[in-house]
Amino acid sequence: MISVDEHLDWVLAQVEPVATVTLPVRRAQSLVTTTDVHSSVDLPRFDNSSMDGYAVRRADLEGASSENPVVLPVAGDVAAGDQERHALAPGQVWRIMTGAPMPEGADAVVKVEDTDGHPHEPQLRVHPDEGAHIRRAGEDVKAGDLVLPAGSRIGPGEIAALLSSGVSEIEVVGPVRVAILSTGDELVPAGEPVGPGQIIDSNGPMLEALVREAGAYVVHVGHLPDDEGAIKKQLHRLLDHADLVITTGGVSKGEFDLVKKVLSGQGSMEFVEVAMQPGKPQGFGVLGRRDVPVFTLPGNPVSTLVSFEVFVRPALQRRAGRSEGGRLATGFATEGWRSSPERQTYTRVRIDRDPTGKYAVSPAGGAGSHLVGPLAVADALAVSDPKAAEVTAGSEVDLLLLRPRSEIDARLHAEDDDHDEEG
Amino acid sequence: MISVDEHLDWVLAQVEPVATVTLPVRRAQSLVTTTDVHSSVDLPRFDNSSMDGYAVRRADLEGASSENPVVLPVAGDVAAGDQERHALAPGQVWRIMTGAPMPEGADAVVKVEDTDGHPHEPQLRVHPDEGAHIRRAGEDVKAGDLVLPAGSRIGPGEIAALLSSGVSEIEVVGPVRVAILSTGDELVPAGEPVGPGQIIDSNGPMLEALVREAGAYVVHVGHLPDDEGAIKKQLHRLLDHADLVITTGGVSKGEFDLVKKVLSGQGSMEFVEVAMQPGKPQGFGVLGRRDVPVFTLPGNPVSTLVSFEVFVRPALQRRAGRSEGGRLATGFATEGWRSSPERQTYTRVRIDRDPTGKYAVSPAGGAGSHLVGPLAVADALAVSDPKAAEVTAGSEVDLLLLRPRSEIDARLHAEDDDHDEEG
Repeated sequence: MISVDEHLDWVLAQVEPVATVTLPVRRAQSLVTTTDVHSSVDLPRFDNSSMDGYAVRRADLEGASSENPVVLPVAGDVAAGDQERHALAPGQVWRIMTGAPMPEGADAVVKVEDTDGHPHEPQLRVHPDEGAHIRRAGEDVKAGDLVLPAGSRIGPGEIAALLSSGVSEIEVVGPVRVAILSTGDELVPAGEPVGPGQIIDSNGPMLEALVREAGAYVVHVGHLPDDEGAIKKQLHRLLDHADLVITTGGVSKGEFDLVKKVLSGQGSMEFVEVAMQPGKPQGFGVLGRRDVPVFTLPGNPVSTLVSFEVFVRPALQRRAGRSEGGRLATGFATEGWRSSPERQTYTRVRIDRDPTGKYAVSPAGGAGSHLVGPLAVADALAVSDPKAAEVTAGSEVDLLLLRPRSEIDARLHAEDDDHDEEG
Repeated sequence: MISVDEHLDWVLAQVEPVATVTLPVRRAQSLVTTTDVHSSVDLPRFDNSSMDGYAVRRADLEGASSENPVVLPVAGDVAAGDQERHALAPGQVWRIMTGAPMPEGADAVVKVEDTDGHPHEPQLRVHPDEGAHIRRAGEDVKAGDLVLPAGSRIGPGEIAALLSSGVSEIEVVGPVRVAILSTGDELVPAGEPVGPGQIIDSNGPMLEALVREAGAYVVHVGHLPDDEGAIKKQLHRLLDHADLVITTGGVSKGEFDLVKKVLSGQGSMEFVEVAMQPGKPQGFGVLGRRDVPVFTLPGNPVSTLVSFEVFVRPALQRRAGRSEGGRLATGFATEGWRSSPERQTYTRVRIDRDPTGKYAVSPAGGAGSHLVGPLAVADALAVSDPKAAEVTAGSEVDLLLLRPRSEIDARLHAEDDDHDEEG
């Protein structure tokens, strides 16, 4: 048996980001930039008013005050989006709206609150500072300035900054397309009648949800019976269209473990026993002319989930050019539980909040890898020390979160509020 | 001016979850259940083997050991998915695969590792315990057991548990459909030529990304010039099709603020000044025969972003029946900055890790609400005490995260690794 870390290192050493693509900024959400991106324009693009008011020449307002307002005629209105080039003559003002371009010759804005707001002959009650309420061209960003370094993940703020900077297309690590294949004569797709000896294929839909949540695209979710020819044909088809393939089932020692039989000796494929509980039988390799990473996970739903979190999610992140490690946390065990000595044990736990605000964890349901009931209440996998035979109450435990942290924190926040209301 | 909390409470008091829908489990990812969901079957559905091996009658293996193996004839093979009902006669065994149904009369499984694995006349080297390696029908979940309480958010684990439990459709709070409308003569859609006095509409695409990231569906992203008739017509059309509407621009005090003009007096619409910086001019109301919440946000991109995080995101969560509060965190200011006295100030900050593992925050770029450059590097909004005129270096600050926490933590994790490698 090899350790979890050895296997993960071996897997990740073979996983490369997918090819670069150029996409409109709006379509690049959650993808990662491959080059530094610079602004193609000054921001603001032109001098403009930051307030509704009047564009003025300061010299005309020498000594103006509430007690001693200056009245000047309005040459016209300039609104945001006005494409004409206006000029301000001495002894006049332009009425100006927020975001509107400054008329030539104006050197300050008097905001409407410092006037009587008259549309034609306003009383102006201040002598403004040089440049008051003017946003100067280029004061935020200059043409050529770095907007986003290579390796940035595109979120809403990045989209706003790029578009404002005149950048409408960017080069990113492409979206990762994933194919999922469940195998086994016993499996029936959800919604179809289940005969004796048969079970619902929950792995396919679970993996589909996991892959989506990890920010990748599911291009195929299928199920095949234990038929060597069919499995072989389908796997080769998927290697042409997907950037990562996940299979479940068919990798134990039995006679009917056809995924192992079909893939053995292909590409860099290796089938190994990893010192972990659950999830011991793992297969991985890079296959086909497009070097597609293929994971063959054990078919038991809990083993599938743990294998995904431990090996597949980091590989998906790397394939997308993203950093890993965002799902790590620590907590305290509120009760003890047994772990498997010599194997890294992943125990499904429920997270609560201890009085100091830390995560307090307790096992969710039983430890058997076939128990799917507790899947619905588990928030995290508690990772035990492979040298220890138990986790003791009160000890600190490393957690691999099974949900986005925001979702866990939102639930805890809502529960805190409930307690507050009760108390 | 009213406080942020007063305005938020007023908004949320008017926001109800959207109507319930029944969906196939696979299509309900990230939606929230409205009823308790019970299993319709026992899990496992039938007694089955947890190992590859031989199904036996224990009485036939009395005294079996490595030194004294018992050899018994194989009646046949039973694989996972085998739909025939087999029976085990005394003095025989069935070769059985993981997940295969137990033959009638068998009371234990001898795993293949405790035999010589012979397909017809295996040497069996143990006297197994009663029920060894048998997963009993109903030991995980019994028909009628609660699988998921009302109010649960459907994630990958919930999908697996529901499908396994024979549940293929569930009742959930429906997906939330959002329409986004930017207004202003100065706006040009991304990718089109920008004339003098014009700017790119970055708010529409930014809001689209924010709404998607918050788990809702964008059904319309549009832009309209300052044309009262066009704005009125479009808003009424959107009220028929969307579950929430967000507009930007046109809500200040200027003559050209047509969104305010068109919506004033409609439904419960109110235009207020909120004691916050940026984001002071806020409009909200519930409109139309479908009681659609409408937010009119200020048009400046930074004001738009802050308004979304403070008011719209919580409303979207409530509309989807989800808990709020998942984006809250705390950090320490590594340097001081000024905040607006009398107003709750939201300062864009970058997050780093301090030596104790806590979030260390510093301002990202300038404080002006028109500065879009720092949008791309800000990880959070630091929320200042409205009574204080500054945030002092070293003080604890409340944070509203602008990115999923997993993304922030992944970056910090990657940076830690880089430091480790350098050190």
